[in-house]
Amino acid sequence: MAQTDRVKEILSWYGSDNPGTKTQLARLLNTGALAGTGKLVILPVDQGFEHGPIRSFGVNFDAHDPEYHFRLAIDSGCNAYAAPLGFIEACADKYAGQIPLILKLNNSDTLSKVEPCSAITGSVDDALRLGCVAIGYTIYPGSDHRNRMYEDLRQLTLEAKSKGLAVVTWAYPRGHGLSKEGETAIDIAAYAAHIACSLGSHIVKIKLPSAHIEQDEAKKAFEKGKVPIGTLAERVRYCVQAAFGGKRVVIFSGGVAKGTDEVLEEIRQIQAGGGFGSIVGRNAFQRPRAEGIDLLKKIIAIYKGS
Amino acid sequence: MAQTDRVKEILSWYGSDNPGTKTQLARLLNTGALAGTGKLVILPVDQGFEHGPIRSFGVNFDAHDPEYHFRLAIDSGCNAYAAPLGFIEACADKYAGQIPLILKLNNSDTLSKVEPCSAITGSVDDALRLGCVAIGYTIYPGSDHRNRMYEDLRQLTLEAKSKGLAVVTWAYPRGHGLSKEGETAIDIAAYAAHIACSLGSHIVKIKLPSAHIEQDEAKKAFEKGKVPIGTLAERVRYCVQAAFGGKRVVIFSGGVAKGTDEVLEEIRQIQAGGGFGSIVGRNAFQRPRAEGIDLLKKIIAIYKGS
Amino acid sequence: MAQTDRVKEILSWYGSDNPGTKTQLARLLNTGALAGTGKLVILPVDQGFEHGPIRSFGVNFDAHDPEYHFRLAIDSGCNAYAAPLGFIEACADKYAGQIPLILKLNNSDTLSKVEPCSAITGSVDDALRLGCVAIGYTIYPGSDHRNRMYEDLRQLTLEAKSKGLAVVTWAYPRGHGLSKEGETAIDIAAYAAHIACSLGSHIVKIKLPSAHIEQDEAKKAFEKGKVPIGTLAERVRYCVQAAFGGKRVVIFSGGVAKGTDEVLEEIRQIQAGGGFGSIVGRNAFQRPRAEGIDLLKKIIAIYKGS
Amino acid sequence: MAQTDRVKEILSWYGSDNPGTKTQLARLLNTGALAGTGKLVILPVDQGFEHGPIRSFGVNFDAHDPEYHFRLAIDSGCNAYAAPLGFIEACADKYAGQIPLILKLNNSDTLSKVEPCSAITGSVDDALRLGCVAIGYTIYPGSDHRNRMYEDLRQLTLEAKSKGLAVVTWAYPRGHGLSKEGETAIDIAAYAAHIACSLGSHIVKIKLPSAHIEQDEAKKAFEKGKVPIGTLAERVRYCVQAAFGGKRVVIFSGGVAKGTDEVLEEIRQIQAGGGFGSIVGRNAFQRPRAEGIDLLKKIIAIYKGS
Amino acid sequence: MAQTDRVKEILSWYGSDNPGTKTQLARLLNTGALAGTGKLVILPVDQGFEHGPIRSFGVNFDAHDPEYHFRLAIDSGCNAYAAPLGFIEACADKYAGQIPLILKLNNSDTLSKVEPCSAITGSVDDALRLGCVAIGYTIYPGSDHRNRMYEDLRQLTLEAKSKGLAVVTWAYPRGHGLSKEGETAIDIAAYAAHIACSLGSHIVKIKLPSAHIEQDEAKKAFEKGKVPIGTLAERVRYCVQAAFGGKRVVIFSGGVAKGTDEVLEEIRQIQAGGGFGSIVGRNAFQRPRAEGIDLLKKIIAIYKGS
Repeated sequence: MAQTDRVKEILSWYGSDNPGTKTQLARLLNTGALAGTGKLVILPVDQGFEHGPIRSFGVNFDAHDPEYHFRLAIDSGCNAYAAPLGFIEACADKYAGQIPLILKLNNSDTLSKVEPCSAITGSVDDALRLGCVAIGYTIYPGSDHRNRMYEDLRQLTLEAKSKGLAVVTWAYPRGHGLSKEGETAIDIAAYAAHIACSLGSHIVKIKLPSAHIEQDEAKKAFEKGKVPIGTLAERVRYCVQAAFGGKRVVIFSGGVAKGTDEVLEEIRQIQAGGGFGSIVGRNAFQRPRAEGIDLLKKIIAIYKGS
Repeated sequence: MAQTDRVKEILSWYGSDNPGTKTQLARLLNTGALAGTGKLVILPVDQGFEHGPIRSFGVNFDAHDPEYHFRLAIDSGCNAYAAPLGFIEACADKYAGQIPLILKLNNSDTLSKVEPCSAITGSVDDALRLGCVAIGYTIYPGSDHRNRMYEDLRQLTLEAKSKGLAVVTWAYPRGHGLSKEGETAIDIAAYAAHIACSLGSHIVKIKLPSAHIEQDEAKKAFEKGKVPIGTLAERVRYCVQAAFGGKRVVIFSGGVAKGTDEVLEEIRQIQAGGGFGSIVGRNAFQRPRAEGIDLLKKIIAIYKGS
Repeated sequence: MAQTDRVKEILSWYGSDNPGTKTQLARLLNTGALAGTGKLVILPVDQGFEHGPIRSFGVNFDAHDPEYHFRLAIDSGCNAYAAPLGFIEACADKYAGQIPLILKLNNSDTLSKVEPCSAITGSVDDALRLGCVAIGYTIYPGSDHRNRMYEDLRQLTLEAKSKGLAVVTWAYPRGHGLSKEGETAIDIAAYAAHIACSLGSHIVKIKLPSAHIEQDEAKKAFEKGKVPIGTLAERVRYCVQAAFGGKRVVIFSGGVAKGTDEVLEEIRQIQAGGGFGSIVGRNAFQRPRAEGIDLLKKIIAIYKGS
Repeated sequence: MAQTDRVKEILSWYGSDNPGTKTQLARLLNTGALAGTGKLVILPVDQGFEHGPIRSFGVNFDAHDPEYHFRLAIDSGCNAYAAPLGFIEACADKYAGQIPLILKLNNSDTLSKVEPCSAITGSVDDALRLGCVAIGYTIYPGSDHRNRMYEDLRQLTLEAKSKGLAVVTWAYPRGHGLSKEGETAIDIAAYAAHIACSLGSHIVKIKLPSAHIEQDEAKKAFEKGKVPIGTLAERVRYCVQAAFGGKRVVIFSGGVAKGTDEVLEEIRQIQAGGGFGSIVGRNAFQRPRAEGIDLLKKIIAIYKGS
Repeated sequence: MAQTDRVKEILSWYGSDNPGTKTQLARLLNTGALAGTGKLVILPVDQGFEHGPIRSFGVNFDAHDPEYHFRLAIDSGCNAYAAPLGFIEACADKYAGQIPLILKLNNSDTLSKVEPCSAITGSVDDALRLGCVAIGYTIYPGSDHRNRMYEDLRQLTLEAKSKGLAVVTWAYPRGHGLSKEGETAIDIAAYAAHIACSLGSHIVKIKLPSAHIEQDEAKKAFEKGKVPIGTLAERVRYCVQAAFGGKRVVIFSGGVAKGTDEVLEEIRQIQAGGGFGSIVGRNAFQRPRAEGIDLLKKIIAIYKGS
């Protein structure tokens, strides 16, 4: 496992972490088809919990089985697989050592109409006993309950780091504090990435940002700073910049399932904008297995620059 | 206690669990008239707490006595008996080793009109000292308080598993987030089963689902996926599928007391749909003892395929 | 699992234990070919640790593999299988629920010449996670270190009972305080059984006692009380009496491997003297598998009274 | 349970104890035929552990059964019954609430020849779960290991008192520091009682002291102080005096079994000397049950002053 | 990281372990030039602590620097590197993720002449924060202090397993109970391996056994069982057998530095006897770096069967 210069460079950004956490980050960066490139493609499957099973797996019935996703992540060359407790437990034993695992420690369903706040559904000790490289956690900047989420994440992060695990944060703006359009606004997306980094996360996942700007002061600031945000690549570039000047790993989610061409074009923009990679869930598993693997391999090829 | 192939197959789905928890699951699956078949009939008696004694036991006065239910479960050949702390304590000593016990760790009464959320009424240590094979826990997806329930269950599950116990979750959609009809809607029932599995439960109990679909997106997904839900058997089949592609044990509750023929027809549908069995409470104890035992034996006979 | 009158009677002797511990005792008494009779035949395999592998398994090479012993105990109809941590761990997962397990929590090797004192090699938490019904522990009355062993056992017993496990004690007189002949003397064997019971053990295992009497005062007492100890059956009877007037389960070890006839004659004497059964190790596994199973079945037949 | 003046007076000596501990002392003093008199007769049965079963119970075979002793203590009107863990556990459940129990927390056997030091064989938590009024503990002043015993007692005493239990100490001089005759010498007996009180015990049990004086300085001091120690009553009186000027409860053991007249004469001397009562073990159970009860009743009658 | 059939087979022997521990075992087996073969070559460097720096590193001065050994293990294609706390800490950060690390948790120096017993010099939490795959621990069967070592290992093993780490035990017979020749006797080597496995170790390291037999009973048993031990390969084969019938990973140490041909001949014998690999310390680092790497690569080639 000779380390590439790029992986060494990325690890150098996390100087305050102990060797255990760095070892896990290295495992993430040195696994799969993108091993050593500093790019990441991760398969996340928490949609069953977040949107319900029929909406998530109805179009590809085999995907109800957690094993489907372990195999999909391994066979397509992903760097890692992320899922809630039960989904990880279902196959962690059978596939031990075959794919880095990220245990999603909180989750939300669509069955309640209250202000968004995910429930804590797993623990750092679960991550250890299941052999995971990292914990995953979702924050909803903009929610009235954001403080509780930030505070829980703080505590879990401290514990994870002391036990040699990495922290991957899903930063999803949402809630009373934001307009619907604002949830993906470029200022808000960059802001959310920055908050996640400030909370000590190693890897941050955000949604692809739109050109909308939610906050007036932000609009002025983009203009004053002459920061280009016209293209998706430019917006990706600014989000990466917002994450500690590019010294934290920011990856992007593709959102709802869409056509292959559309997905690949987004990936090219992320790559052009200096993004570190993608979390691809629905677009990967809401199509037949062969097509899903094919898409993931094409995405990986773009990040490889080949 | 030679293990049947079916029991071995079911245990293989729980690879991440320690041998202690698997031993308890094996005890559940290897007890009673359905021993070795992979099917389960469980007698649950928490109605006294949930609905009050007169509504629960008024029509069959002897059933006020916890011993009535221990004897009913044993004499009818059930796999297990589930009840709250006091009910279990009342006879766990006298019947030690005669029937696997599931300690219901939370309960709700009808004396308060607030958003539904059960109180924690027992502990994992209680389950150990009382010789139980599993803890039981109710979640109310749809309640504004669902997160607290998910989080408490997470913690109890981790503790139970580390001490070699199994986890049985009652997944009962309820609360502000749902219409009354939605509580048993097929999309919601399947969703609730999936959430319980994602929280790490070994066995999930849901209500028999109706053909109603609560969420618009779910309706589209059922149509798009061409998932048949016209008959009860088909709906049972989808709920089992929603529970990790059929790799978690899902059992069904009969709900309110009704006529014998109606009950047995439901059981036939569950069996036809690949359900793993039933939790039969009121229909078992809200009739004279001989009739209750007779009904349970008929139910068991259907699951035996005889 | 209807309880026989005899099992009910035995359980009634342990009134101060919680239902969890009684459930485990019931599992022990209700498993295998002797289920329900109140008699026990247990396969113990700690000889590898105690005497080394070549002395233990050289004559039956397959017995080096822990799985051999799980299968031997199951296939011959034993009530339980007892072994040290590593031996139990090797197959507890594969055979979960198929045979009650007793985790030997201390062990001694023959590589050191100091006053006998076993090392603690497992914990109550190990017993829980491995799904065991009981902990096992060896005391050496007569050793200068007996107090440490009694005190460790006391602590483990308290913990085991609070977590719903049973306690099986190997009471093996040995050490500076005794002559070599005294180790199996009738007064000492009975004394050791009594000490183990006084320490709160549920089941006590002792060696078959000889007619030798080690202590002068004991000799006078046997004479004064006119207690017959001429035959093995009579000595067994007194050891059972010494264990709380016959209200604790006392089982006997066969010791070194010997001829089948000799073994079976000993079993008949134990049965005639009212002993509760046998722990048969070397005589079971130091012969070819078919012969070992055959011998165990013959032993079981004697205890069945058939 | 109206308190007699005498009981009130005795309780007043223990002002620093919490009401829980005082409640237990009151239960001890208000039970049995001597209730309210401030006198105590206690049945202790740890001889099985201390001397072996045949020496203890050979002459009265039924006494091997722990139940024999519970019944003996209750039927003869004793204030309490004291025994090691296993003996108490055997019947604490069946006789719960019928006789105050003292759990002997340490015990010694005769199978090892090392310097005397009892092993700790029970815990304060055991005493609580078994419903005992007090813990019992033996110290051997004169042993090379006395400090370990004093220190263990200190810790157990602190725990017992914080949990509302009383402490009964057996103070038995023994070991390298003393001549054989010195073990019951008047100066040593009084010294031992004083040490037990100084360690915080509520009730102290010593052997009947002889007129021998072990330490030269003590001899001079008895002479100088003109303290009469010629008769047994005088020696009892001095031992009581040594226990905080009579403000700690000191009771006396009868030692080896002997003739009824001899026993009763000793009791009269204890009564004459102001002793608080007796612990009568072997003299009570090493004769037929009817005789044992008769003897205990005669002893009680003496203490009643009738 | 597709798993080879051989690695899957080896992992299947550890069924009672959680997925975390299995993941670490998989990392060990899937790293370096022997990845996937089921064979292991590990570089251990605790000689500085065990024998002092000048004896250990005097002939190859650069080896005083811990970094020398990290590089040596990585560059030669070893599966793992094992060392005490300070040695690991020195470079764990710089080489995070480049080589699986085994933290030796106890060590002994040559500065005291007492009966051998290593000091605990690290913790499981250290192993986690340093990113190690396993803890390492040395036992000295034959030492008067063996019990303390077994008991400490037991505790560390339970903790390591619960936190998803593996356990590697150095089983080195030594101490008053053995003759000097007996330390490497075939019966003792096999016995030591068996003890380490019984204590729950995943990987056991022993010294290459001689044809000497230390215990008379063992001599008889080898003869009776007709177990060939004439060649080194035969003795290796029996030691592997002694480790749970070949179902635990046993590796061998080369001992003192010697000529290349001699070393390689030993490796061929280990390979022929079915050994799982080697721990090569002094022979690797007590020669110039290029020669050390060359030797390790030749050893690896033999284990590859090429």
